[in-house]
Amino acid sequence: MTDEFNTALPSIRQLQTFIKDSTEVEVKLSTSDLVIGKVRWQDANCLCVVDHYDQPTIIWKQAIVFIKPKLA
Amino acid sequence: MTDEFNTALPSIRQLQTFIKDSTEVEVKLSTSDLVIGKVRWQDANCLCVVDHYDQPTIIWKQAIVFIKPKLA
Amino acid sequence: MTDEFNTALPSIRQLQTFIKDSTEVEVKLSTSDLVIGKVRWQDANCLCVVDHYDQPTIIWKQAIVFIKPKLA
Amino acid sequence: MTDEFNTALPSIRQLQTFIKDSTEVEVKLSTSDLVIGKVRWQDANCLCVVDHYDQPTIIWKQAIVFIKPKLA
Amino acid sequence: MTDEFNTALPSIRQLQTFIKDSTEVEVKLSTSDLVIGKVRWQDANCLCVVDHYDQPTIIWKQAIVFIKPKLA
Amino acid sequence: MTDEFNTALPSIRQLQTFIKDSTEVEVKLSTSDLVIGKVRWQDANCLCVVDHYDQPTIIWKQAIVFIKPKLA
Repeated sequence: MTDEFNTALPSIRQLQTFIKDSTEVEVKLSTSDLVIGKVRWQDANCLCVVDHYDQPTIIWKQAIVFIKPKLA
Repeated sequence: MTDEFNTALPSIRQLQTFIKDSTEVEVKLSTSDLVIGKVRWQDANCLCVVDHYDQPTIIWKQAIVFIKPKLA
Repeated sequence: MTDEFNTALPSIRQLQTFIKDSTEVEVKLSTSDLVIGKVRWQDANCLCVVDHYDQPTIIWKQAIVFIKPKLA
Repeated sequence: MTDEFNTALPSIRQLQTFIKDSTEVEVKLSTSDLVIGKVRWQDANCLCVVDHYDQPTIIWKQAIVFIKPKLA
Repeated sequence: MTDEFNTALPSIRQLQTFIKDSTEVEVKLSTSDLVIGKVRWQDANCLCVVDHYDQPTIIWKQAIVFIKPKLA
Repeated sequence: MTDEFNTALPSIRQLQTFIKDSTEVEVKLSTSDLVIGKVRWQDANCLCVVDHYDQPTIIWKQAIVFIKPKLA
């Protein structure tokens, strides 16, 4: 279930840029849940998103449908 | 969860043609969401689609059900 | 997410026969969508089905539930 | 997405027994569809089930939830 | 789609214990179906659960969400 | 369907920390079920969560959407 975790891939680099820039993102999940927050870290299996109250949600990459930067 | 990312495959080349031609496409996702826009880039894990307002959506390939060119 | 794409497999050959014979098929997808048309091509990741108006739908194999030849 | 297709595995042999004995089975799919019929063949990707009218349905193994022999 | 089938893994051993002890279990599936019974056997792809009437259900491991021992 | 089970990965270590600290967590599953409890153990395929009555639920990692520590 592991994505290809090659830091040269555009998708992996895009996530690294979201982390570096503290970009607020919307993550749509396979259950149709929408998680909103900033990406704190990623690895081969997961993505950690923290909300306004600094509460972390550890998202399994297998459940991600799409991610988009939240409009200002 | 990674598709075979071989640029000689018809499906990968078809997406490359959509990118080159700025074809507007409909992407149906596993949540039944429909993302409409132009494909900006693809890699082994993801597809980036931008809408009329140039807002990007980074779609995980694992969640794609089908893609079709939008009728003019 | 890639199926085993071995042209000696009965399932791959069955699809090749549908392509060669221009058999009209029903493709049931994980979203419960039903795509009806003729299979134009397949590769390791995708299946291309064209409808009566010759509009293509590029179906990701990961989303296929079943395929059956449409009754005459 | 390919199951392990080792003919020594109990699950693969169970399906081979259903084929040999023309056992009528119920196949529950990820869309909650229930396909009823006899298993004609299987390979690494698919299972072919034929109904009372001898109409085949080619089921992708990735979409199978469970199979049970139909009660007499 | 095959799980890691290493008999030294706690999860595989837990299932083997359920088989040995004839523990009644609840198996929740991706379609939200709940199968209740005793685990008869497992292999890399499947789990066979038999109900009170000794009817077998062959569950694909890919569709398992969780298993818990049924309360007495 | 097996995640990468490398104990150096942040996501695997995060789960190990939840186990060590007896952190109460919410586990959201692909069926939208929410399992609440403490993580007892994990391996490459599964996660075992025990509730207030010490009843175990063996969760298949393939079905995990997200995990978050429960707020106090």
